[in-house]
Amino acid sequence: MNVTLLAGGVGGARLAHGLDLALGAAPVSTSAQTGTSPQALTVVVNVGDDTELHGLAISPDIDTVVYTLAALNDEDRGWGLRGESYATLSALKDLGEDTWFTLGDRDLATHIVRTQRLRRGEPLSAVTAHLAASMGVGPRIVPVTDDHLATLVDTPSGRLGFQEYFVGRQHADAVLGLHFEGADAAHPAPGVLDALAADLVVLAPSNPFLSIEPLLAVQGVREALATAPGRRVAVSPIVGGQAIKGPAAQILETLGHEVSALGVARIYADLVDVMVIDERDAALAGPVADLGLTVHVTDTVMGGPPGRERLARELLALV
Amino acid sequence: MNVTLLAGGVGGARLAHGLDLALGAAPVSTSAQTGTSPQALTVVVNVGDDTELHGLAISPDIDTVVYTLAALNDEDRGWGLRGESYATLSALKDLGEDTWFTLGDRDLATHIVRTQRLRRGEPLSAVTAHLAASMGVGPRIVPVTDDHLATLVDTPSGRLGFQEYFVGRQHADAVLGLHFEGADAAHPAPGVLDALAADLVVLAPSNPFLSIEPLLAVQGVREALATAPGRRVAVSPIVGGQAIKGPAAQILETLGHEVSALGVARIYADLVDVMVIDERDAALAGPVADLGLTVHVTDTVMGGPPGRERLARELLALV
Repeated sequence: MNVTLLAGGVGGARLAHGLDLALGAAPVSTSAQTGTSPQALTVVVNVGDDTELHGLAISPDIDTVVYTLAALNDEDRGWGLRGESYATLSALKDLGEDTWFTLGDRDLATHIVRTQRLRRGEPLSAVTAHLAASMGVGPRIVPVTDDHLATLVDTPSGRLGFQEYFVGRQHADAVLGLHFEGADAAHPAPGVLDALAADLVVLAPSNPFLSIEPLLAVQGVREALATAPGRRVAVSPIVGGQAIKGPAAQILETLGHEVSALGVARIYADLVDVMVIDERDAALAGPVADLGLTVHVTDTVMGGPPGRERLARELLALV
Repeated sequence: MNVTLLAGGVGGARLAHGLDLALGAAPVSTSAQTGTSPQALTVVVNVGDDTELHGLAISPDIDTVVYTLAALNDEDRGWGLRGESYATLSALKDLGEDTWFTLGDRDLATHIVRTQRLRRGEPLSAVTAHLAASMGVGPRIVPVTDDHLATLVDTPSGRLGFQEYFVGRQHADAVLGLHFEGADAAHPAPGVLDALAADLVVLAPSNPFLSIEPLLAVQGVREALATAPGRRVAVSPIVGGQAIKGPAAQILETLGHEVSALGVARIYADLVDVMVIDERDAALAGPVADLGLTVHVTDTVMGGPPGRERLARELLALV
């Protein structure tokens, strides 16, 4: 079975990890040798959060997915690498650099290698494949586009760059609108449209506006998903009227949506066949079904690896 | 009194430190306020050793001078910063990068800032001034040129890049010749030629071939030194027939020069008025004087700050 996950940061990374565990650690070539069907996971990752700091190219969502699949991530914090030190950041501060964005010493190596390869002319998709392979990651991690795509956030204080909004101001501003700079001209990275023809396509429980919308804004992606031949499933990031992590609930509200799994289902209704909602939201199963969607009710809060694998197995069973 | 030092790495950095101490820590503006003559030190630094690693611009001689004047340098090792950690380098290695060139975490911050500013279009001289000021360095540190200049080393194994020869292969190859790539087209950085009109111009006890020759190879520098109006003094890096540090003795030999302070004096005879040689080489004072040079015999091995300041005071007294 071929599975494709559309993912943002932490929620996407956790479900990617679960799918990787559920599909088994055996590489495709080994599966083929044993005569079973190859099982392949592709994770298409948002790059609207990407930024440049200290002249280095930073891809936070890609790194969260790669670090999580490599089992190098900091589970407690939700981002970055475990056991990090911050000597370079401290020295950058001493040199007068603005260090509001925390970058660990080992994390910096990723950004240094990425920047070097991008400057040489390698596309981000090739650089990401190299980095993922260097960290022993099996699934294919693909940025949604190799072209420029930047999520800009309109707030009462004006339009902010994504990381300024999210990290610099701790997503405290009301979001009045979103702008995906470059999306109109951005082409899908090699393999992205093919990946949408998988047996199972999953929209991760990531922020619908900050993680999934910029993916869909890339030329042809929304259309390819709307007409995808496989089973299309979305997992609600809203549980009991709250986001598991981040500002999804506030943004639903300020943009005029219902702050619930039903509100999310309405956004995705034309794009998926199945909506996965949490058992705490079981009462919404009827209204979601009324949108023409199949509803799967389960415990969607993944937590650690066992919970991730369990949810992933339920998704695989939907095909 | 205005003093200009032409410097390579460690030997140049130590004498720069001595001159900074001898000229006093008071900034020029304060001296002017008190009515005394302004005393200014300019250090013109070799950039033939500069290289790019992991996409970062590395300027080893500039950094050795800046770190030493900022009292942040590792005295025992002779290069880099005190108390360094190596987490980023370790992670770069894990990502498959070639890490033969040791880069500390705090040192990397310097290279990151330099690279960012160069990419923005700032000349190396402006970047160096920013970095030196950020580290609280008073004297003016100027790269000899803002243009490309790369020292290439001809050996029995072929032509090697400088850092490959020096660090990668631990300067074990016989040096058959040197090539200063870009020197013919390189212009002196702003202030370099003016600095050669100082009351005292000193050639540091740096490697004559690897540190001083690339400086002199930049357009107009050798001519400006040959006709400089102030007192011109060279300090021999060879003491008792040996180099205090590095491969200067071997290179003198393979290039057909006498391995002694006299051999060095012959190289510099047309460029300086005074040759400073070590008391262990007092017997060479006559032959050096026969070249038409004034000879000053003293203890040239500086060691720590007191020895540096003592030698610097003797140089100032030569004016």
